[in-house]
Amino acid sequence: MSSTRVETDSMGAIEVPSDRYWGAQTQRSIQNFPIGVARFKWQAPVIRALGILKRAAAEANAELGELPQDLADLIVKAADEVISGKLDQEFPLVVFQTGSGTQSNMNANEVISNRAIELAGGEMGSKKPVHPNDHVNRGQSSNDTFPTAMHIAVAQELERDFFPAVRQLQSTLADKASQYAQVVKTGRTHLQDATPITLGQEIGGWVAQIAFGLKAVEAALPGIYDLAIGGTAVGTGLNAHPRFGETAAARIAQITSLPFKSADNKFFALSAHDALANMSSALRLLAGALFKMANDVRWLASGPRCGIGELIIPDNEPGSSIMPGKVNPTQCEAMTMVCAQVYGNDAAVAFAASQGNFQLNVYKPVMVHNVLESIALLADASRAFNDHCAVGIEPNTEIIERNLQKNLMLVTALNRHIGYDKAAAIAKKAQKEGTTLREAALALGHVTAQQYDEWIVPLDMTHND
Amino acid sequence: MSSTRVETDSMGAIEVPSDRYWGAQTQRSIQNFPIGVARFKWQAPVIRALGILKRAAAEANAELGELPQDLADLIVKAADEVISGKLDQEFPLVVFQTGSGTQSNMNANEVISNRAIELAGGEMGSKKPVHPNDHVNRGQSSNDTFPTAMHIAVAQELERDFFPAVRQLQSTLADKASQYAQVVKTGRTHLQDATPITLGQEIGGWVAQIAFGLKAVEAALPGIYDLAIGGTAVGTGLNAHPRFGETAAARIAQITSLPFKSADNKFFALSAHDALANMSSALRLLAGALFKMANDVRWLASGPRCGIGELIIPDNEPGSSIMPGKVNPTQCEAMTMVCAQVYGNDAAVAFAASQGNFQLNVYKPVMVHNVLESIALLADASRAFNDHCAVGIEPNTEIIERNLQKNLMLVTALNRHIGYDKAAAIAKKAQKEGTTLREAALALGHVTAQQYDEWIVPLDMTHND
Amino acid sequence: MSSTRVETDSMGAIEVPSDRYWGAQTQRSIQNFPIGVARFKWQAPVIRALGILKRAAAEANAELGELPQDLADLIVKAADEVISGKLDQEFPLVVFQTGSGTQSNMNANEVISNRAIELAGGEMGSKKPVHPNDHVNRGQSSNDTFPTAMHIAVAQELERDFFPAVRQLQSTLADKASQYAQVVKTGRTHLQDATPITLGQEIGGWVAQIAFGLKAVEAALPGIYDLAIGGTAVGTGLNAHPRFGETAAARIAQITSLPFKSADNKFFALSAHDALANMSSALRLLAGALFKMANDVRWLASGPRCGIGELIIPDNEPGSSIMPGKVNPTQCEAMTMVCAQVYGNDAAVAFAASQGNFQLNVYKPVMVHNVLESIALLADASRAFNDHCAVGIEPNTEIIERNLQKNLMLVTALNRHIGYDKAAAIAKKAQKEGTTLREAALALGHVTAQQYDEWIVPLDMTHND
Amino acid sequence: MSSTRVETDSMGAIEVPSDRYWGAQTQRSIQNFPIGVARFKWQAPVIRALGILKRAAAEANAELGELPQDLADLIVKAADEVISGKLDQEFPLVVFQTGSGTQSNMNANEVISNRAIELAGGEMGSKKPVHPNDHVNRGQSSNDTFPTAMHIAVAQELERDFFPAVRQLQSTLADKASQYAQVVKTGRTHLQDATPITLGQEIGGWVAQIAFGLKAVEAALPGIYDLAIGGTAVGTGLNAHPRFGETAAARIAQITSLPFKSADNKFFALSAHDALANMSSALRLLAGALFKMANDVRWLASGPRCGIGELIIPDNEPGSSIMPGKVNPTQCEAMTMVCAQVYGNDAAVAFAASQGNFQLNVYKPVMVHNVLESIALLADASRAFNDHCAVGIEPNTEIIERNLQKNLMLVTALNRHIGYDKAAAIAKKAQKEGTTLREAALALGHVTAQQYDEWIVPLDMTHND
Repeated sequence: MSSTRVETDSMGAIEVPSDRYWGAQTQRSIQNFPIGVARFKWQAPVIRALGILKRAAAEANAELGELPQDLADLIVKAADEVISGKLDQEFPLVVFQTGSGTQSNMNANEVISNRAIELAGGEMGSKKPVHPNDHVNRGQSSNDTFPTAMHIAVAQELERDFFPAVRQLQSTLADKASQYAQVVKTGRTHLQDATPITLGQEIGGWVAQIAFGLKAVEAALPGIYDLAIGGTAVGTGLNAHPRFGETAAARIAQITSLPFKSADNKFFALSAHDALANMSSALRLLAGALFKMANDVRWLASGPRCGIGELIIPDNEPGSSIMPGKVNPTQCEAMTMVCAQVYGNDAAVAFAASQGNFQLNVYKPVMVHNVLESIALLADASRAFNDHCAVGIEPNTEIIERNLQKNLMLVTALNRHIGYDKAAAIAKKAQKEGTTLREAALALGHVTAQQYDEWIVPLDMTHND
Repeated sequence: MSSTRVETDSMGAIEVPSDRYWGAQTQRSIQNFPIGVARFKWQAPVIRALGILKRAAAEANAELGELPQDLADLIVKAADEVISGKLDQEFPLVVFQTGSGTQSNMNANEVISNRAIELAGGEMGSKKPVHPNDHVNRGQSSNDTFPTAMHIAVAQELERDFFPAVRQLQSTLADKASQYAQVVKTGRTHLQDATPITLGQEIGGWVAQIAFGLKAVEAALPGIYDLAIGGTAVGTGLNAHPRFGETAAARIAQITSLPFKSADNKFFALSAHDALANMSSALRLLAGALFKMANDVRWLASGPRCGIGELIIPDNEPGSSIMPGKVNPTQCEAMTMVCAQVYGNDAAVAFAASQGNFQLNVYKPVMVHNVLESIALLADASRAFNDHCAVGIEPNTEIIERNLQKNLMLVTALNRHIGYDKAAAIAKKAQKEGTTLREAALALGHVTAQQYDEWIVPLDMTHND
Repeated sequence: MSSTRVETDSMGAIEVPSDRYWGAQTQRSIQNFPIGVARFKWQAPVIRALGILKRAAAEANAELGELPQDLADLIVKAADEVISGKLDQEFPLVVFQTGSGTQSNMNANEVISNRAIELAGGEMGSKKPVHPNDHVNRGQSSNDTFPTAMHIAVAQELERDFFPAVRQLQSTLADKASQYAQVVKTGRTHLQDATPITLGQEIGGWVAQIAFGLKAVEAALPGIYDLAIGGTAVGTGLNAHPRFGETAAARIAQITSLPFKSADNKFFALSAHDALANMSSALRLLAGALFKMANDVRWLASGPRCGIGELIIPDNEPGSSIMPGKVNPTQCEAMTMVCAQVYGNDAAVAFAASQGNFQLNVYKPVMVHNVLESIALLADASRAFNDHCAVGIEPNTEIIERNLQKNLMLVTALNRHIGYDKAAAIAKKAQKEGTTLREAALALGHVTAQQYDEWIVPLDMTHND
Repeated sequence: MSSTRVETDSMGAIEVPSDRYWGAQTQRSIQNFPIGVARFKWQAPVIRALGILKRAAAEANAELGELPQDLADLIVKAADEVISGKLDQEFPLVVFQTGSGTQSNMNANEVISNRAIELAGGEMGSKKPVHPNDHVNRGQSSNDTFPTAMHIAVAQELERDFFPAVRQLQSTLADKASQYAQVVKTGRTHLQDATPITLGQEIGGWVAQIAFGLKAVEAALPGIYDLAIGGTAVGTGLNAHPRFGETAAARIAQITSLPFKSADNKFFALSAHDALANMSSALRLLAGALFKMANDVRWLASGPRCGIGELIIPDNEPGSSIMPGKVNPTQCEAMTMVCAQVYGNDAAVAFAASQGNFQLNVYKPVMVHNVLESIALLADASRAFNDHCAVGIEPNTEIIERNLQKNLMLVTALNRHIGYDKAAAIAKKAQKEGTTLREAALALGHVTAQQYDEWIVPLDMTHND
């Protein structure tokens, strides 16, 4: 039986564990929202973002004369502990709570207030000298703080985790493209044999697609850098100093070294989270690129004997509990499952994004949760795929060469010389009779042997530079 | 310059083309909703359903003494013309109108009223002797008639178009499964070679999956057979005879030969269209099954020389405008594109389904539009796939046999005799050294030649009955 | 520095923590798949299901003479410990691994094998006397065991958690519907005032919609009760006793008291998980119903003074960190966010469901993860909503009465007496001039005062029984 | 019986209607793909784009010496007729065909070839002097031409139709925001009364959100301007002059006056259509913004007497077939249904975008179809909403003022003076006792009457500039 102390809010008194910093509203939320408790507690990125926000707000209020310096200093100290992660256990709330994130904002206010009170030698729960609403939440509303924290968390995780991981994978693949720039192989369209390409070109296509996805994510960043802070309850900034939004945003930019700024239109910043929805769809786009790449890898590595078999990928673990010696493209599978999840997360975000009413969208927590999950999963999966698959991709040159020799679509190089219709006749004859293309071409008399050998040169057909 | 006549409604007078049966509200809708006019006009299924509904309502009202028999007879005659399709041009409205379908309900009321007036020798627009609201719409509201028409249209199209088409494809594939029940081939899991199956088993898996999808569609039908009619404006049935709902539903059942009945809870029947949402997800499920089947077909037919190549599918058209002689799995492509569309349609339906408020869901038109589109596309694509691909599927026995001989996973049959670990060693040795499984097995000494030949019999490994 | 022991698999040796039961393949998976580690480890439902499956398999193998009784007994004992939850910490793997769940199947095999070895006094890692593949996985493949465990987990969670929670909410609402069966209020369609209903009818519509959703979930259960077990690697049942599937399924049914049985077509059961996809869309349907209900509740409770205000819901916590005294419909918000998540989860499932190839769908883990998450969230949210909102819903009779008196759509009751057009004129006049309906009706002379009072009786207009 | 002529392709001869310009491959496609024929034929944007492309290609080939000038001139003339729309009836093919759009590319080649032959006095079907493949398709493959046409069509429709329509709506709303900049009203968060805003601020929030969506669409344009042309069959540019891609792109830019250019990586340009997927999600984002705006409008206009009623919107048509005098927010309903459709279309596009394999994504037609449909629907709905709703939005000042006076959240202005806790007590007392805020404030003695009147000034609380 842990002991308790009494905390109060505008609803009255409630008992909270005496060894916890949180207060009445956090406690009420624990009791009222036992939803997904095992998996949906806020994790470090959101907690850290709330700490950064509360620190920046206190500094801004002090700078603007809205808060005595000594109180601001206490708040900053406590907020720094939140930022450092050492108070993570003081944030017990889950995603599925008030749609404005009010209870998590109050959780931060209460923890920082009580820790600041403790630092000042006061009595926890007394709200003196640091009041959770009047001081920690000074000039703020959940309606502007929580979306601000959402943006901070998303931007930080992208920078810290996502970009390095995805760019590393992109870079590994780019290296492979260079390395195999001269490996000529069968191209495939409609899953059917097509004119030749180099393996470098094939991998280079993946790299370009990933680059396009990354560019979309980057293009969505400016919206994330726009912060709601300063809008308070409905966007008007009531109860905040007129320069509070820009001042706090500047502090946040300073603390995070990211180009955050105060949003131009606070009504939009509270009532919609289209910057997050936009980011979510950019992440989905990238997921689509990674999905296609991982699919190509596993198909090209299919076999070992009855598939395409043109790529060799690392054997990381036994593939089957019943088929001895089987090796499976497991990193591709993990990656494509992550991509399916990102697609689903995006559907949740887009749905939620449409459901704002008047001055507030009350799907804030579920939106930021899904965006952060997509960021983390794509980062993790990119790292795992890079380390345990991409770095070890190698061509199976024997099979590549054998396939290339058989490929009837080499005939395409003859179009320019003898026209599409005669070229088609050659390919059809070879396929029907099971001969080589060369045999069929000569048999039909459309080209001489010398012409054939001069005109059909797979490497030349790749126009590789 | 076509001439016009004046029609009126509670908003006042408006000119309509004099050669048209529609009235004021239809005309207003044409003017107010120029949205997707080229592609989103209601098609025959919805128009026919409105005709059926209006006929049934007139009959029910007459039976219950709510409408003089002569007026009812006039309405029935005009409604029969709507049902027959000869008045299709009188229904110019689009999906994107009032969310209750009010304007299409009024379109039906107006057309039937004016045609009935004409039959009675009256003056169009006079509303005498047949008033669009007081008589044709007697005991009805758009809020119960339009969802009733939605259900009629969906059920009829499923019966008329969808089930025959999909079942034909299922039957063709079932025949193929029987026909190729003895063709032993390489199984594939994770895209990698696995233990053998028969082609009949492989195709039989598709048939079972399609059957499961069809069962889901059938399981969604009872909800469709529940009709909103009788609920009028908000579900209470105000202004309708207490037995109007059941009587009209019975008439509809009679006209359509489908087991329609009056819904138990009319408040639910107006404020939500979960029966449609449920049908939509069943269609999506079936689409997923067709998608997987079509994908398997094109992968198994990939090549002709550098792919898997175990199936031969019909060559229906030249595959490439640049690569002569290329043949592509185009029916698979059309089918999988249809499936992608059905997935998208379902997303629209599910979104719309969640957005009801109080006594009405005002996404009725967009919901029924998407469900009907999915029904029609799946039916059309199943027919095309059946006729131009499925009927012509044949095994490429030479490649199938060659692949089977190479398949290292035949080793799995040894597990029971020598254990997983030794079996794994054999497979790995064969793969590493490029030998046959038999050579590796004998070299390692884990089995004798006689044991190998007795234990590894691909057909036996399929447990085919 | 925790000490380690050496475990081996067909890839060779690897060190694992000596205080863990898991073996080589689990260890490899930990190292190869550091994806979403903080949130995506398998939870109790899947671990328990694997335990149930392995126990049932051992019993079935013993019964069929495929496994010595003493080994089976050891496996059963160890599996019972898995079922009990005391070995949960021995299952460290995450969702994003091999797409067949092979590594989690092997995790179960390894833990049970080593625990059984320990119980037998053997040496962990020695695979003697209980081999993870040859004994624990006897007659099984990941390809049939993992989907079997998926179905067990889903069915058990539905029974244990989901149905009780959702039915409780349904029952609370049904009670409210009875309780307020005589409270006549304004109906609303298109968000506009409409003819009257009772509060009981309104709530009854929600109850009917939830019932429809629950029926869809129940209708999806038979597919879940069909088990893949017996199909082994590709569906043929190779290496399993011919009666293993049905025998193991019967044991599972016995252990769980749920009507599990062996699936008719094992090729379908491995290559597609449409039973899960079907369940997912049923859960989405229910989510749509809960979404609509929660939305209606918060709109009807909107205000307190500038909204609709017809319902009073419990005040559970302060609503705003800046607006004193504000109370928000937070349970509605948590519920609707859960519904958005369920929509997203379903999108992931449906996407994954379409991506099977040949004899396997390798999106098993991500599919079951999302279905289980939707089940748990809907259960939790239903409980929270029931306890903290639904039980406390009350009508604000003063506002309800005031709104009803003002409602111009009472005029609809006059249609039957004076026709739609005259009734429309009355309503328009009243609205334009800001008078009561009665005043306008009398002023236009379409009815007498006595007629008005006789014909317009709100309670009668609800046709309430 | 219309007469026919014989056309040939590499499959052989086939009869086509003698009065049609199309050839053998178009005819085969008509016969093989009877899917969605009534609604899914390509419309003007795609046909025009194919014409532009073929003209540009002929000009580029002539410039580069790949095509005799006289043949190029003939092709240009015929292509101009395609561009003009006078040959629209010659394009009978549907969306659901070959996934590369090959048949529509050939449709263009055949029509232009035959029309050019006719212009040259030749015999249709003779392929002389203008061959559909060797001349019209010179240096091209469907794999690069169709995606090029996709991009041309999308960019042109955005410029021609979409941007003007959406910007007009945005501008109308911006005007309304200015016009009502001084109308102070109740803000609403969580659907509950909140601190005041001006109507101008509220509408301004919508404008800002729409602007953000438009910016996302604009940000997606550069990807659309990148053209695949020059990649031919697999991205290598085989059979095209090395400068063909850039030359043709420059011609296209010239013809369309849009900044098209040759894509940097043609392998990416053929194997993925992430530029379209990116555009689709930008359109979805905008749809979400329009959805929220339309929802706010209808809620604010709800009533007329039992809803919020703060906005007056145009009465465009009778709202109900049963409730006389009812007026509904029908433009909002059409708009929100369009948005649901756009969400669904995007789901189809995103799904299709992920399904490329190797050198080709074979979901080209379904992707461009859905993007073009979203563009057209959003444009149409924006125009209709603008003309029939937005332009007529007016405040109901009487209700706005009445609501504002009642709003308890005016108390928030006291936070800065008396603290959150005392302010909360005032609001709770007023709500509980049904008094005004002022009465409660004075009764509790926390402020004087003078302070109250000085501190609580709604217009000041909006911080309106």
